[in-house]
Amino acid sequence: MREDVRMKIAILLFDKFTALDAIGPYEVLSRIPGAELAFVAKQPGPKRSDTGMLEVTADRPLADFPDPDIVLVGGGEGNRPLLFDDEVLDWLRAAHETSIWTTSVCTGSLVLGAAGILDGKRATTHWAYRERLRDFGAEPATERFVVDGKVVTAAGVSAGIDMALHLTALATDPRVAEAIQLGIEYDPEPPFDSGSPEKAAPELVDLVRTLERGQAAEPQRAT
Amino acid sequence: MREDVRMKIAILLFDKFTALDAIGPYEVLSRIPGAELAFVAKQPGPKRSDTGMLEVTADRPLADFPDPDIVLVGGGEGNRPLLFDDEVLDWLRAAHETSIWTTSVCTGSLVLGAAGILDGKRATTHWAYRERLRDFGAEPATERFVVDGKVVTAAGVSAGIDMALHLTALATDPRVAEAIQLGIEYDPEPPFDSGSPEKAAPELVDLVRTLERGQAAEPQRAT
Repeated sequence: MREDVRMKIAILLFDKFTALDAIGPYEVLSRIPGAELAFVAKQPGPKRSDTGMLEVTADRPLADFPDPDIVLVGGGEGNRPLLFDDEVLDWLRAAHETSIWTTSVCTGSLVLGAAGILDGKRATTHWAYRERLRDFGAEPATERFVVDGKVVTAAGVSAGIDMALHLTALATDPRVAEAIQLGIEYDPEPPFDSGSPEKAAPELVDLVRTLERGQAAEPQRAT
Repeated sequence: MREDVRMKIAILLFDKFTALDAIGPYEVLSRIPGAELAFVAKQPGPKRSDTGMLEVTADRPLADFPDPDIVLVGGGEGNRPLLFDDEVLDWLRAAHETSIWTTSVCTGSLVLGAAGILDGKRATTHWAYRERLRDFGAEPATERFVVDGKVVTAAGVSAGIDMALHLTALATDPRVAEAIQLGIEYDPEPPFDSGSPEKAAPELVDLVRTLERGQAAEPQRAT
């Protein structure tokens, strides 16, 4: 068991982030023995979530946490300006050069795509955005998370927890991941069978897709 | 569908909180149409998670968000001092008088217990702490979450997501909860079958219990 691994993990924050995209994987990855996990942002400081009801601090500027082993970009309407932000995209490309895994949750994959990281890769994202992946040369997949070489992309929001447990097993040992899963008592019992568009009623899928599109259509503001 | 409900939700923060205990339910409950959700604390301001790697802001002091419909107390080693904190316990008792649901995730149930709210109730908590519930007159249960009257307690960490979806269905309409579950793509695929002590290998249970006990044995500091 590689318990001596010192794993550096960077999670990118930005205003209007979806909290669980970032915090789900944080809760798993921060428990890897020896993990050093930092929330980083172009401009460190307080970041409000997409609902406006939660504030999380980005502790470090991008340049202050070099050569992370795992890079994670989450979703949320606030990541759309990042698709055109050279400073963030350059940081992401540089991090990808030396990372062990470059990862995303939900629409964080669009940012990886804008950085050129998904070109020719199989990848996933929030189900309502799957076709957008083609804009970046990626082949959309419907799995809970997709491992293509060192690029690991998760589906929407809660999928980051499953991805992070899988990454933990790869980064250390399956036993460590099993222990973390037990520690966070991750034995899910979703009350409904509506968690994916393949399972939910079609009219529910249409409703949620419309709500998501409303979000996606918001004007893109500079960060 | 009671979509016009204006639901006030208070989530208690404190230093050394377990992030997913609070953020999992936040991600679900904040999406209830008309929800007003606030992170509250005895002393508002930045709170560090139990790993030290994450900072979340408590936006409001306890007195500044009166009469919440849903009160939620999460776990983390930092909640142990709250068991002896009259200001917090008095706030919790007062909130419980007028709440629709008084809830906990993980060891947040110990704080409900210290406030006298679990006396004679069936309740749950993180699996490693179940027997502690008897100290407060509660009957420990092994379900993912337990609804006993208006007291709703969830098991460890990730169980708050399941509880929050169930609460959403109760507070509004099952269709709203189903839509939120689809929106956060909550169709979990845990990579291991180790998420509960009933399923994990006994030696893994012993290991994680020892780690949890180490945490529980830390000296209790005043907040």
